[in-house]
Amino acid sequence: MSAVTGTIDNGVDTERLFATLDLIKEQPALALFQFRATNRWISGAHNRSTIQGFHGAGAEDTTRTEAFVLDAGEPEVLLGADTGPNPVEYLLHAIAACLTIAIVYSAAARKVQLTKVTSTVVGELDARGAFGLDADVRNGFERIAVSFHVEGDASQAKLREVVERARERSAVYDIVTNGVPVAVDVTTG
Amino acid sequence: MSAVTGTIDNGVDTERLFATLDLIKEQPALALFQFRATNRWISGAHNRSTIQGFHGAGAEDTTRTEAFVLDAGEPEVLLGADTGPNPVEYLLHAIAACLTIAIVYSAAARKVQLTKVTSTVVGELDARGAFGLDADVRNGFERIAVSFHVEGDASQAKLREVVERARERSAVYDIVTNGVPVAVDVTTG
Repeated sequence: MSAVTGTIDNGVDTERLFATLDLIKEQPALALFQFRATNRWISGAHNRSTIQGFHGAGAEDTTRTEAFVLDAGEPEVLLGADTGPNPVEYLLHAIAACLTIAIVYSAAARKVQLTKVTSTVVGELDARGAFGLDADVRNGFERIAVSFHVEGDASQAKLREVVERARERSAVYDIVTNGVPVAVDVTTG
Repeated sequence: MSAVTGTIDNGVDTERLFATLDLIKEQPALALFQFRATNRWISGAHNRSTIQGFHGAGAEDTTRTEAFVLDAGEPEVLLGADTGPNPVEYLLHAIAACLTIAIVYSAAARKVQLTKVTSTVVGELDARGAFGLDADVRNGFERIAVSFHVEGDASQAKLREVVERARERSAVYDIVTNGVPVAVDVTTG
């Protein structure tokens, strides 16, 4: 990995990327991040998350002046009014987005100029699990398949290496393949 | 669980819910669903997913006339231009949305009228993992905490039971706590 100065590759400021890595090496506490979403039920399957604040790089973020608002729902066949993607579709988007960012950053660090990155993510589930109709069927996806198409100014082998490196470094890929402990707390009013 | 006819509870058509469950019991293949997201890189961390088609209830869905479009990105401190929530924030939203829908459906099936469901989901990670700076640090969240506040016309014990049932039946909670195999395939152009 050679040092790159003052250039922007794939829309990534690689000078800043390497400076960030150096800073974290010196002060590992800067790498601690806390991300958040707050959600409110509207009606039926319709609910809405607001995403704005997060803690990272040693401070609470102040750069986001507006919140991102995400509406979720279920399609008709799953008893909703199609008010947004459903939760498992949001999860597929999270996987695609995370692997894509990891590919782009990884390519930038290697001075590989990308011209195209597209992907399709497919997840399969048996709704008897979530509906509680069969204890032998899990609630979530049984399997997920991600298909990437990547183009750039490097050899096929190099482009494949970039994707492999991204898979090894993606936060959401790690979460979804390895699992994370989730604590659920309830207050009632 | 008593049969409910012709009523809508919490915005959920419970008559249709029970009819759906009966239908799936008779024809389990109707419960097989395939969900999809297609993603395209734009620049830097900015990428966009399109979500529309899915297969379920024995057919390809035709009710969604327009696609949902989701923009992802990274905040400045993670080398993006804040073009959307980042992938791990989308994942937190997916957890909140899925547990909320499971709470609402579960309450409707039990004739519990809800008046409020809000939640905050918090995930903590050490970015040294995803940046490849420490092999002992995982890429994804080390832990996730979900805090629900639920109000309705039932006892505290009953409301807590509804949340517990939702946790047991949520697809995304299952995926994130237990993990799912993810296959990654690459073509280059």
